[in-house]
Amino acid sequence: MDGIWNGKYARGTNLVTSSIIRDLLHLTQRPAVISFGGGLPAPECFPTGAIQAATDEVFAEQPLAALQYGPTEGFMPLRAFVAEHMAALGAKVSSEQVLITSGSQQALDLLGRLMIDAGAPILVEDPTYLGALQAWRPHAPQFITVPVDEQGVQVDALERILQSGVHPRFFYIMSSFQNPMGVSLADERRHALIALAARYRLPIIEDDPYGELYYDGNRPTPLAAIDMQMHGELRHVAYLSSFSKLLSPGMRVGWIAASPSLLAKVAQLKQGMDLHTSSLSQSVVYTACRDGLLAAHVPNIRQIYRERRDTMLNALHRTMPRTVRWTHPHGGMFIWVTLPRYFDATALLQTALEYDVAYVPGTCFYANGGGSNSLRLNFSMPTVAQIEEGIARLGTMLHAFAHEKAA
Amino acid sequence: MDGIWNGKYARGTNLVTSSIIRDLLHLTQRPAVISFGGGLPAPECFPTGAIQAATDEVFAEQPLAALQYGPTEGFMPLRAFVAEHMAALGAKVSSEQVLITSGSQQALDLLGRLMIDAGAPILVEDPTYLGALQAWRPHAPQFITVPVDEQGVQVDALERILQSGVHPRFFYIMSSFQNPMGVSLADERRHALIALAARYRLPIIEDDPYGELYYDGNRPTPLAAIDMQMHGELRHVAYLSSFSKLLSPGMRVGWIAASPSLLAKVAQLKQGMDLHTSSLSQSVVYTACRDGLLAAHVPNIRQIYRERRDTMLNALHRTMPRTVRWTHPHGGMFIWVTLPRYFDATALLQTALEYDVAYVPGTCFYANGGGSNSLRLNFSMPTVAQIEEGIARLGTMLHAFAHEKAA
Repeated sequence: MDGIWNGKYARGTNLVTSSIIRDLLHLTQRPAVISFGGGLPAPECFPTGAIQAATDEVFAEQPLAALQYGPTEGFMPLRAFVAEHMAALGAKVSSEQVLITSGSQQALDLLGRLMIDAGAPILVEDPTYLGALQAWRPHAPQFITVPVDEQGVQVDALERILQSGVHPRFFYIMSSFQNPMGVSLADERRHALIALAARYRLPIIEDDPYGELYYDGNRPTPLAAIDMQMHGELRHVAYLSSFSKLLSPGMRVGWIAASPSLLAKVAQLKQGMDLHTSSLSQSVVYTACRDGLLAAHVPNIRQIYRERRDTMLNALHRTMPRTVRWTHPHGGMFIWVTLPRYFDATALLQTALEYDVAYVPGTCFYANGGGSNSLRLNFSMPTVAQIEEGIARLGTMLHAFAHEKAA
Repeated sequence: MDGIWNGKYARGTNLVTSSIIRDLLHLTQRPAVISFGGGLPAPECFPTGAIQAATDEVFAEQPLAALQYGPTEGFMPLRAFVAEHMAALGAKVSSEQVLITSGSQQALDLLGRLMIDAGAPILVEDPTYLGALQAWRPHAPQFITVPVDEQGVQVDALERILQSGVHPRFFYIMSSFQNPMGVSLADERRHALIALAARYRLPIIEDDPYGELYYDGNRPTPLAAIDMQMHGELRHVAYLSSFSKLLSPGMRVGWIAASPSLLAKVAQLKQGMDLHTSSLSQSVVYTACRDGLLAAHVPNIRQIYRERRDTMLNALHRTMPRTVRWTHPHGGMFIWVTLPRYFDATALLQTALEYDVAYVPGTCFYANGGGSNSLRLNFSMPTVAQIEEGIARLGTMLHAFAHEKAA
């Protein structure tokens, strides 16, 4: 009798399917499996004591800010903190240019709803973040993909697309330590991209959840900062980030920084979606940040993840067949592996699970298909020992296959 | 240069406008104004100490459940608690039939996205909840309205609409202590409505945030319970409620109880929208409920609001001109006032603000216009003294107008 409801679903909803990653995660929950499939921060990186202390302060100082309805745009002290944080990155925005979202995922959903009509072209990296594809597929856009190499998205390829007369609604880019490849857009490409945006009046959605997680050199300069530097205002870039990778993903607190008129439209939409983001989460995040937790804590995360990245890179170097290549990320949570063309990483996952190791097949991250011989490895969640052992298992499996192929 | 973004907005977004209520609330924030315009729970009703204690327990017992990513469907212990809560109301659902949302507003958004195509007919009460109109207008449905009287929606009028051959996607109803009128659907109408739903295969979205706030007699039986009683399963009803009016709205925790296949679709959509509701909020709400807070606390809220309702009803009786009528709600947070036809409550609001009193013009709650001589009064937020004084001001103003009219 479910037909009473499912005979009445809206057209776009047949385009919604459960994330392959989530379905896979079910398979990888056997305790014996070492999973490189997730995208979770390591729980030992959560500053639990400091967050608990911040929560106590919230209840002591202003419990009503945590418990009552609040403004759709977000808790003002948190918006002000984020504005300062952005200014320190070179993008000097006002508090009014910051809107708090229920994680970055909601920012993607909001901007998709605001900007996409069915059939409208949008530009995405190839590969790109799976959650963006998932948020936007119900709107049935025409995905146009731009190739990515070790220096990030190929801006000259993007230019050729724009020259061809396409008028995309926006270009979506993870500028730093991209999910899934782990690569960052090179500095000269950043400037070229903003110049291109100005020339073609191209809106850019810059998604930057990993920017603070750099393990070599400096934090990359956000496109938002370059836009402000070149144009005196946040003209082409809507900047998204979140506290998920820095404090805790479970609190679901992210933000959008953008032009005031764009944010006004976003706020109208968000009001109908959830009124506002959890006041409890917002006031706890604010209080923790006010007390200096980011500066005190993020270096610890960098140190832990740097060691895990190094361990994974070394283990790959030691154990992979010569025909296998992988990225060498300077930050973030992922390494991207490319197998010889004759491998199908999706089919291979079943075998990997027999070896008690898991990853995400790369094809999930391609808007229009492709990448069947690639896979994503996460190094933030597994321990150093698990990384050593898991990569060894993958290496053993791939050597066995390579041997079969050779035989 | 905002044209870079706003030249590219999706078609539906021009249908999104800021809530008139929110704009009005800005005007009513002068301290001298006594506002009956909001829909906020009284902050003195928040069980702050108990919520703080629950938060301490969360950090002591299972901080990871509060800080790490969680399942889209919600924190399982909270889903189980809600299932028990529903069973006590006569709707014995399983935990798997409960999905946690970021407040009821998100449930409305989710169901609108799942069920509405542009031009598709949907049935709503006349007047109905403004937040539902706001969530659904971007999808451009054809709103078909069903009149409401002191016994709730007129089920015979609904039947005539269905007989006429309309095939609505769903009927949206606030079954108990409706916002804005404060009225509840009479028992015999509840049974008639479910019988009608079965006859016409009509999906019903039952929104029940106020059901526990009853001040006379018993809690009304949810339509969900009647559906289960008549059909052995949750077949026609998707039931929405939240902890906003019982514990705290700022935590943004609500739920949908529905058939498993409907919930599976809802979960797929929600995943792309915000991954999941704040784990911190969910685990705090769960722990507070597990510790018995609802049973201990909700009677206090009832007592406070009952007194405020009585005060407002008495004040209206004492001060209103004879030509003014109003509802006599047995629960909830609102009284609905009908002025003589020659009044325009929207135009009158400007004058009311000169008298330092505010309300919401009734016309906001009508999907297709109308109700210009009605207004909504909130009695949960103002104190007893403010209610006495504010209603006296309204009465003085209306007498002055009535006098003018007579002169």
